[in-house]
Amino acid sequence: MNDDSLDPPNVTLTEIAREAGVSPSTVSRILNGSARVAPEKQRAVEQAIARFNYRPNGLARSLASGKTDTIGVLTQTISSPFYAEWMRGIEDALHEPGLTPMFVSSRWNVKDEIARIEHFIERRVDGIIVLHAQLNEQVLDEYSRRVPIVALGRALSSTATLAGLPVDNLQGARDATQHLIDLGHREIAFIAGPPNHSDAIERLVGYRMTLEEAGIDFDADRVEQADFLEAGGLAAMERLFARGKSFSAVFCANDLSAYGARLSLFRHGLRVPEDISLVGFDDLPSSSYMTPPLTTVRQPTYEIGRLAAEALMQLIHKESVILKPFPVTFVTRETTRQISLPAGEGVLSA
Amino acid sequence: MNDDSLDPPNVTLTEIAREAGVSPSTVSRILNGSARVAPEKQRAVEQAIARFNYRPNGLARSLASGKTDTIGVLTQTISSPFYAEWMRGIEDALHEPGLTPMFVSSRWNVKDEIARIEHFIERRVDGIIVLHAQLNEQVLDEYSRRVPIVALGRALSSTATLAGLPVDNLQGARDATQHLIDLGHREIAFIAGPPNHSDAIERLVGYRMTLEEAGIDFDADRVEQADFLEAGGLAAMERLFARGKSFSAVFCANDLSAYGARLSLFRHGLRVPEDISLVGFDDLPSSSYMTPPLTTVRQPTYEIGRLAAEALMQLIHKESVILKPFPVTFVTRETTRQISLPAGEGVLSA
Repeated sequence: MNDDSLDPPNVTLTEIAREAGVSPSTVSRILNGSARVAPEKQRAVEQAIARFNYRPNGLARSLASGKTDTIGVLTQTISSPFYAEWMRGIEDALHEPGLTPMFVSSRWNVKDEIARIEHFIERRVDGIIVLHAQLNEQVLDEYSRRVPIVALGRALSSTATLAGLPVDNLQGARDATQHLIDLGHREIAFIAGPPNHSDAIERLVGYRMTLEEAGIDFDADRVEQADFLEAGGLAAMERLFARGKSFSAVFCANDLSAYGARLSLFRHGLRVPEDISLVGFDDLPSSSYMTPPLTTVRQPTYEIGRLAAEALMQLIHKESVILKPFPVTFVTRETTRQISLPAGEGVLSA
Repeated sequence: MNDDSLDPPNVTLTEIAREAGVSPSTVSRILNGSARVAPEKQRAVEQAIARFNYRPNGLARSLASGKTDTIGVLTQTISSPFYAEWMRGIEDALHEPGLTPMFVSSRWNVKDEIARIEHFIERRVDGIIVLHAQLNEQVLDEYSRRVPIVALGRALSSTATLAGLPVDNLQGARDATQHLIDLGHREIAFIAGPPNHSDAIERLVGYRMTLEEAGIDFDADRVEQADFLEAGGLAAMERLFARGKSFSAVFCANDLSAYGARLSLFRHGLRVPEDISLVGFDDLPSSSYMTPPLTTVRQPTYEIGRLAAEALMQLIHKESVILKPFPVTFVTRETTRQISLPAGEGVLSA
């Protein structure tokens, strides 16, 4: 450990410059590597620096160079297993070129999101990745003029400093619904996500659209809203039972909701998939350890995180970036099965 | 948004001082709030600042005051559901006094741990919380002389700038093992954690000690080592089956291992708890949604995170801190049950 890295000896650039026989601005240019100087000047400054045992501290160095080798990553919830995979992918991709991600969360609060982004900019991060940005496109665009930004889980018009990486929620929801229809299900309940969350809205649209294309009426009584969390999924499932409408399958707008729904089915003595088929969305790491393992729409979350980090590095290096929605894939595990019941004879509720 | 907060107009403290008719050091003292100055000088400086539309940027301000209102939180793995709860507790406790946690991870790598801590210190965080610090006590102590540190999940001798908050792993493991013994189990397998992880070691010791106190021989053939992750728990369970030793219960050193073990039991057609009792350790949020809900040792992880943040704030304010291990509680859910089989007639493997 080098204890003087925090407290450099009390020496100024001017003193080093005097010692080396160069101007203070030359010292500054050598310290921050911003311009070439003659080799003999470079050597004289290095010797003077060594003589004084001078080590510029991190903040002073970053003030001089404008580079901090840190990337700000703004998540909505620090404890979400979904964001965890995005963050892991981002971190791995940044690790190789030696960049350090700093993670902060805004707790789904727009004011906090603004404060955190301002804070990152004040601290001169080299770029920012925002997971599920709440801010509108115009505000993100304004911020991106100060530091490059990649928004993960958002479609945005790309600029030289801003890129959005959306997820194909619509296709994923269509795949899940079609899978259940193909297995003979016609009474398919849906546990939706938060009504103001664009992923949730797109998944609901995909579900409804696919039902209608198959000639199955959309029935609002088979849809319950939840909050993308286990407890909400459990409560929504209970409300579905309380409604008294029959259903033979449940499509949940995300895996956490499906975990909650799974517990509700267990409490009601219903077997998965023998009595009720269950499908999630996301493919969290723990979904393949559910009992039985969950059939779900796989977002390659880790890979998407990596791609976002790589896109940000391109923006930082002033390369242009065009991002397309990352394709989702449907993963058939063990929570769905073929039925041949005619409509109206699905498992009745309560 | 205020676009000039990043790029303050090109004005120096000296110019502001000249305009206000005070010395540059007075301007500096007013900007960083470090000392009282006469009210008329304060007013003159404020007017000069307003006239120049001068806004000191965050880095310059922090260089001046030495306070950044940020706390560095070093986790080992950004994507772990276990650390997630610690991080959530830390964040909530810091949110109230207006402090921003910056999370970074060292990926269980000591060199990265050093680099991240140095980085936090360079960036002048007001304090650091380290989750499962890999560094030895002496090194942590040295760092803590530069910035206060709380180590979460570690017993440490407290100093004026360092505190450790251990978890009572031993008691938790004793409670879990005793619970199974009380239900009549005598052939209790154990899925251990990483051999170099102190939590894992203490839990193994608690398991072994409790068996021996109950007059049950410790049998190394009923112990398999895993890695605190689902996949490792699954593989360890498979190896236990391959050994051919009978067992009627499995105690897993953490919940993630128990999820993996649960899947292995499901694959072998064994019911939980009818055929095999299963106990975890941690009580992750998803454990109460397992099928059936997991009996486990509850660490109040979120509350421990809060306590660590509060302890750090005390150290920052130069108050002394004495931390005791946070008590664990045993949570009986639905994965264990009474047996009356004599020894040697537990479920046979494979």
